[in-house]
Amino acid sequence: MVYNNNGERIKQDDLKYNLHSWSAQGKLDPVVVTKAEGIYFWDAWGKRYFDMSSQLVNVNIGHGNKKVIEAIKKQAEKIPYMAPPFAIDVKAEAAKKILEVAPDSMGKVFFACGGAEANENAIKIARMFTGRHKIFSRYRSYHGATYGAANLTGEPRRFPSEPGIPGFIKFFDPYLYRAPFEFKDEEEASKYYVGQLREQIEYEGPQNVAAIFLETVTGSNGVIIPPKGYLKGVRELCDEFNILLVCDEVMTGWGRTGKWFAFENWDIEPDIITFAKGVTCGYIPLGGVIVSKKIAEYFNDNVLWCGLTYNGHPMGCAAAIATIDVYKEENLIENANKMGVVLGQELEKLKSKHPCVGDVRYIGLFSAVELVKDKETKEPLVPYGRDSEKIMPKVLKMLITEGFWTYYHENMIIVAPPLIIKEEEIKEAMQIMDKVLDFVDNNIVK
Amino acid sequence: MVYNNNGERIKQDDLKYNLHSWSAQGKLDPVVVTKAEGIYFWDAWGKRYFDMSSQLVNVNIGHGNKKVIEAIKKQAEKIPYMAPPFAIDVKAEAAKKILEVAPDSMGKVFFACGGAEANENAIKIARMFTGRHKIFSRYRSYHGATYGAANLTGEPRRFPSEPGIPGFIKFFDPYLYRAPFEFKDEEEASKYYVGQLREQIEYEGPQNVAAIFLETVTGSNGVIIPPKGYLKGVRELCDEFNILLVCDEVMTGWGRTGKWFAFENWDIEPDIITFAKGVTCGYIPLGGVIVSKKIAEYFNDNVLWCGLTYNGHPMGCAAAIATIDVYKEENLIENANKMGVVLGQELEKLKSKHPCVGDVRYIGLFSAVELVKDKETKEPLVPYGRDSEKIMPKVLKMLITEGFWTYYHENMIIVAPPLIIKEEEIKEAMQIMDKVLDFVDNNIVK
Repeated sequence: MVYNNNGERIKQDDLKYNLHSWSAQGKLDPVVVTKAEGIYFWDAWGKRYFDMSSQLVNVNIGHGNKKVIEAIKKQAEKIPYMAPPFAIDVKAEAAKKILEVAPDSMGKVFFACGGAEANENAIKIARMFTGRHKIFSRYRSYHGATYGAANLTGEPRRFPSEPGIPGFIKFFDPYLYRAPFEFKDEEEASKYYVGQLREQIEYEGPQNVAAIFLETVTGSNGVIIPPKGYLKGVRELCDEFNILLVCDEVMTGWGRTGKWFAFENWDIEPDIITFAKGVTCGYIPLGGVIVSKKIAEYFNDNVLWCGLTYNGHPMGCAAAIATIDVYKEENLIENANKMGVVLGQELEKLKSKHPCVGDVRYIGLFSAVELVKDKETKEPLVPYGRDSEKIMPKVLKMLITEGFWTYYHENMIIVAPPLIIKEEEIKEAMQIMDKVLDFVDNNIVK
Repeated sequence: MVYNNNGERIKQDDLKYNLHSWSAQGKLDPVVVTKAEGIYFWDAWGKRYFDMSSQLVNVNIGHGNKKVIEAIKKQAEKIPYMAPPFAIDVKAEAAKKILEVAPDSMGKVFFACGGAEANENAIKIARMFTGRHKIFSRYRSYHGATYGAANLTGEPRRFPSEPGIPGFIKFFDPYLYRAPFEFKDEEEASKYYVGQLREQIEYEGPQNVAAIFLETVTGSNGVIIPPKGYLKGVRELCDEFNILLVCDEVMTGWGRTGKWFAFENWDIEPDIITFAKGVTCGYIPLGGVIVSKKIAEYFNDNVLWCGLTYNGHPMGCAAAIATIDVYKEENLIENANKMGVVLGQELEKLKSKHPCVGDVRYIGLFSAVELVKDKETKEPLVPYGRDSEKIMPKVLKMLITEGFWTYYHENMIIVAPPLIIKEEEIKEAMQIMDKVLDFVDNNIVK
């Protein structure tokens, strides 16, 4: 390559020619990465980082997996691209392998390029199948940045896509740490939230509601884990009113929570699953929609009004096949469970020790640390949407400077390392977090 | 791979596990492709097809290009994926190379995965930059199938994404073959259409209009080529009212019309260019938005509220770099011009000879054959949106059976071969078209 790993020149041209996402461009100082392997990556000057967010919670198998790279190279040699109308071996095999790890009730796969497109197509499929037009989704959710996905989204990243699409309705999620009541247990909380949802459905007209979209575990908005009985309650509402339940498993799928899909943790089955991220771990862009057999059958005689140039892309499908094999051969689902226990213990230690840690939430290797100014009042470290002193960017920068790569959202830091991580590595990385939280305790919270 | 090129088994599993786009699934009989090279591909039984649509007008460099395949393999070995915040050599280089072939007024690139996502981001960028919310686009256009892109779209593929997003306004394109008047020349037609557009802008309130989106040459809706003076007129309107002109070059970019970008044919420059398809020729999904220097500067101090997990994907960027080199090294822009003359001659012959050919439109290697029942009255071979006798699918099937692969839209057949095609190959392929049109003349038009 023309830059020969010259970090300064790469950074200069990157900033000169690229627009970076979710940022003003003027003050960016991006890390220049020239090497990545396993749970680590290195900048152009040789500094090593723990990848404690698996990039954007997608590189579950870690960087540089040889098996997936070989599959990509082999497919590039054979057929890198054919358009959607064709039958291609890897497209058939990828769909088959995905359905093998999904519930038996699932029927077919429609491939797209990523999570946003997956959700876009799921909205259309739900509307076509039900003949209804209203779509429910939750505040504090993120489903993507294209117009349809952004209109599902329940946080500030949807604002640039408003005024919104008619018929998109928001409801509140069971965010128990900041619930309006002290519930006596999870079941009571679930009863309250499902009851509120029922009332909202009644007033929107159940006969108008096509689907309820949920991130099974809310992701970037703070790893908000559904209390016992919640998903079952939502499933029952859907059954009662013939509303489709769509689980957005873009972030939570592919072992992240210790199961192939997060909904397995609560013994429910959705009608539609959307996926992306972990299916190829980012090696090639891929996402898609898994629909139930019942929905698949409907489209035998009815036109599926969905399409994109890269639907069923052979390179993405080849990467997915190899990636799914890696999950199985390296027992990564099992490791996510085992290492999830270690991570949970480390997080609980942080919570006990640090005044600035209000809450820690974790399931499998998916977790968040919620920072507060005051443990008693739960006042967030920064006010929602208005971190005018740029406190969270400073906290993040400290972590990154110490070699702990991740990202934050509002007052929450995501911790979601690759599923190949080992116990010692978790402990070593979390020492960095501990050190940075000491600083927050002593200099920001006081 | 598990199927070992067994066509029957691939087809069976493909139909069992995959949802195919824009179709009812029950009666599909997809061609099983196991090999592709240059302008040809082969099914599992060894039958060869001319790829006369370059798949979805994107495989401009043809199938199996070694240079691009090597670049993909090399990047897979180095870093297949890093998240958007990082600076990566190939992301910097790809953006730089794209800007080198764009007008000097262009400043930066925002990468997405495909054309729909490119348009989605362009809408948001235009709204953010101008602070206005109305978006103009044209009937008979296709801009993608996600909600934002579908709401730009001016044909039936947007219907499943309605009720629409507020503020999306449609106007009519200069489709001279079916214009309401006989214009004395192209300039007069342009004056009429630009005048109509001006009136519509006045009544929507110019101060409310963020952008006008155009496929520079309307693509799948029938290769509708702007008359002389039209684009200049639209550009002047935009300048007068401070409205951004967005050229959707997803299909027309990368040499398709004999220029890097189609707008060069009419000496205008847009404020935003959206691209995809030919930038990597589908080898790896990639698309993006090129913004003017003025717009790029705005985002130095203002947050760009755009993002996606696969923004600036290293594999896509590596493929783009190699693909752009191929265009240059193999003189494909020049070849598109030369071969465009040959294709044009062949199309004119068909028009002279066949009663069923109402119009042929072509520019570079981008063309459409418009079929009619009656050359005098111009009655389309099938009524718009209501081909109940499935006549066009039958015509297409005849072409494909004879080894001429392409696709149709309404009463129009797209002809857009890879830019590497040779004169003899065009002539050989077009003989198939000639034969099939004989059948249409004799058995359908009568």
